[in-house]
Amino acid sequence: MSKENIFPDRDQFVSRREKENVIKQKGLVIWFTGLSGSGKSTLATGLEKRLNSEGFLTEVLDGDKVRNGLNNNLGFSSDDRIENIRRIAEVSKLFCNCGVVTISAFISPTVEIRQMAREIIENKDFFEVYVSTPIEVCEQRDIKGLYKKAREGVIKDFTGVSAPYEAPLKPNIDMNTAGKTVEECVEEIYAEVIKKVSF
Amino acid sequence: MSKENIFPDRDQFVSRREKENVIKQKGLVIWFTGLSGSGKSTLATGLEKRLNSEGFLTEVLDGDKVRNGLNNNLGFSSDDRIENIRRIAEVSKLFCNCGVVTISAFISPTVEIRQMAREIIENKDFFEVYVSTPIEVCEQRDIKGLYKKAREGVIKDFTGVSAPYEAPLKPNIDMNTAGKTVEECVEEIYAEVIKKVSF
Repeated sequence: MSKENIFPDRDQFVSRREKENVIKQKGLVIWFTGLSGSGKSTLATGLEKRLNSEGFLTEVLDGDKVRNGLNNNLGFSSDDRIENIRRIAEVSKLFCNCGVVTISAFISPTVEIRQMAREIIENKDFFEVYVSTPIEVCEQRDIKGLYKKAREGVIKDFTGVSAPYEAPLKPNIDMNTAGKTVEECVEEIYAEVIKKVSF
Repeated sequence: MSKENIFPDRDQFVSRREKENVIKQKGLVIWFTGLSGSGKSTLATGLEKRLNSEGFLTEVLDGDKVRNGLNNNLGFSSDDRIENIRRIAEVSKLFCNCGVVTISAFISPTVEIRQMAREIIENKDFFEVYVSTPIEVCEQRDIKGLYKKAREGVIKDFTGVSAPYEAPLKPNIDMNTAGKTVEECVEEIYAEVIKKVSF
């Protein structure tokens, strides 16, 4: 190869548009935020299944998947929580720019941390779903026994108990799961998402 | 939602197979290793363009893209170089498990660091392309003027000059770009890759 044609021309990258053309869908990041036990991961996987059944390519990023891989060297200090969300936002952006419907489900409790994610991903690609299930309901579910431990002081800085949760002011969707079936919630979200990702 | 159906069942994730079914291709990580100036990024983008033109969904990860985003908080210390490749391997794995043909182009100079990447990604999904362009040719190209600076001692620990490059012993492809056109090189690699990613 000559010197001229080995120089990596950034325009040689296949563009997002070209990728979206191949898979006939548009990239988007659907960002679920809410308390522990609010139903984020359940809705994320339910939405993914619904989208997959309609032929959409999806990627779910959630705490378990990311903490066991990319972010397995991060703890729960304030700095590490920010770095956790920063990396997730960067990876969400890569998937979105590849045309994939990306579903990220993280407590992401503060306006500031979600703003960081939104800026990394870019506003136009950031679709915010606030899972607004009341804390009483989340605590009643207490699937992993975390609220009990937080109330006992075994877990410190637990969102909603000993650390604040700041609700989004203008989410794209406000979804209170109390009294609804998973299917009903998923269908409501799907109806909005499909408008954004259809080719 | 009831307590029973909010519990996130990991089986609810859409599987790799289901994703591959949607886009009619198989995930794979094509890992380019070689000296600076060997032609890794040129071949990566050339291969991506070729695959895209045949209807494959691809993602290229290279230094510029990753250092400006996910890894923008890493430097060039020994620890940071390892962490750089670790994160890239984790992201490559996510893309591969989403069914995307993932093309990662990094010097990744040691057997050990490539072994780490291979283990994270999993051997069956790791397709290694050694870009074996001789150092004399790379240095003659010296697109970014890095070899000159390395020879002058301005850049320390430069692979091939003041830091070792350990060639892969059994790469899937050994590609010496000297005396070949980009198109010829891309076509050789494409012919092997297509066998792995076709549905």
